[in-house]
Amino acid sequence: MTEAQAARLAMREGTWTGPTVHKVKGYVQANLVVLSRSDAYDFLLYCQRNAKACPVIEVADPGDPEPRISAPGADLRTDLPRYAVYRSGAKEGEVTEILELWTQDSVAFLLGSSLSFDHALARAGVEAGDIVWALNTAVPTVPAGKFHCNLVVTMRLMSPEQVIPATQVTTRYIYTHGSPVHVGDPAVIGADLANPIYGPPLPAIPEGKTAVFWACGVTPQQAAIASKQELMITHAPGHGFITDLRSDSFCIP
Amino acid sequence: MTEAQAARLAMREGTWTGPTVHKVKGYVQANLVVLSRSDAYDFLLYCQRNAKACPVIEVADPGDPEPRISAPGADLRTDLPRYAVYRSGAKEGEVTEILELWTQDSVAFLLGSSLSFDHALARAGVEAGDIVWALNTAVPTVPAGKFHCNLVVTMRLMSPEQVIPATQVTTRYIYTHGSPVHVGDPAVIGADLANPIYGPPLPAIPEGKTAVFWACGVTPQQAAIASKQELMITHAPGHGFITDLRSDSFCIP
Repeated sequence: MTEAQAARLAMREGTWTGPTVHKVKGYVQANLVVLSRSDAYDFLLYCQRNAKACPVIEVADPGDPEPRISAPGADLRTDLPRYAVYRSGAKEGEVTEILELWTQDSVAFLLGSSLSFDHALARAGVEAGDIVWALNTAVPTVPAGKFHCNLVVTMRLMSPEQVIPATQVTTRYIYTHGSPVHVGDPAVIGADLANPIYGPPLPAIPEGKTAVFWACGVTPQQAAIASKQELMITHAPGHGFITDLRSDSFCIP
Repeated sequence: MTEAQAARLAMREGTWTGPTVHKVKGYVQANLVVLSRSDAYDFLLYCQRNAKACPVIEVADPGDPEPRISAPGADLRTDLPRYAVYRSGAKEGEVTEILELWTQDSVAFLLGSSLSFDHALARAGVEAGDIVWALNTAVPTVPAGKFHCNLVVTMRLMSPEQVIPATQVTTRYIYTHGSPVHVGDPAVIGADLANPIYGPPLPAIPEGKTAVFWACGVTPQQAAIASKQELMITHAPGHGFITDLRSDSFCIP
């Protein structure tokens, strides 16, 4: 059993319900969005129009909970550590499986997560710390049908001399957000440090650190939330789906 | 007026009705597929599942003939040199505009064409000749809904020592098919030299030349043909849409 399969099994059995940040290194992690078939086209088009934020790894057939391409044999209803359930655009709560919520009309989208390249940053000597923030910004995305919202970014803090290698390394990982979208002053993109989607609130960037921002796969979740879907299920932020894909073969040479 | 805009204007006015192969170098060329809204989701998903063959550059909103992202101001009903019209999966003929065929239900897909990187091959000293063949193969693609077919490839002939630079150069152009899918014996992928989709029939690969094959954006056309759409419109093979995008900025570093 691979490390990815073992992780998914632990999640299925309910013994792993915590975050996947910096876990199962070297495997592609994915963000999950589950919508009804009637909204799937506009959502897929939204992802196509905003590919940097929404790199689609796989879309399962309607009613099919198995990601046959990226993790054959897995079950997206049970094999994530934690899910967020939204009704009419409001968060109802978090659960550790969604067997009862899944229907024949459910369509599961897996979108590349930047958590997939943290091992590559570490390998290149980039010390970005333990915390990866997810933040709202003031940067608009391109709408598609009912889906629209501002870009969500991940933020990592590093020493100034690590910015260039971090940019170079992540440029290769184009299926999991690729190069940064911004370096430096969070105000330039309106990054909301005070109210993070994931990670602790931060009054200011610490002295001696530079903030580097990547487009984040939580963006399409925000778009789906803004569209006030009757029912939408996602992974809980920081609690991704571990695919069988290797980060280092799911990138450009 | 840019060279791309001038080309589109000539096509709109009907003075350019011939191929775009090796023309308007440096601009991204796109394949066109026009389908009805009811088939758009399965088709977009087919493209996502076969991204090497079907790199989606842009999908216009239903009824909108303007590619607002890749060529603002252009009209996809008139600004290609030649279109192919299919009814129930059979080719009805070729026309030079589709104003009468377009409806509020029409959805236009633009897919990256490998004709976009021929200038880069030439720049690297790869002499692939004037002819770019489009060939059917025996390699299956991943189906989505009603869409399925075998991979279509472009074939270029070059001297053996040019294969490696050709591979290296095109690897950068991932939005227009990227690296080759095969080098050498056409039989390995079942490439049908006897019945090309585009280009003259070829009994065998000429002595001293190596065949190099790239995934081709005619693939989704073949999938759409196989699905026997009531009405489908595409560009005529070899007669692409010239976008405003520059090939050398629409690629990886």
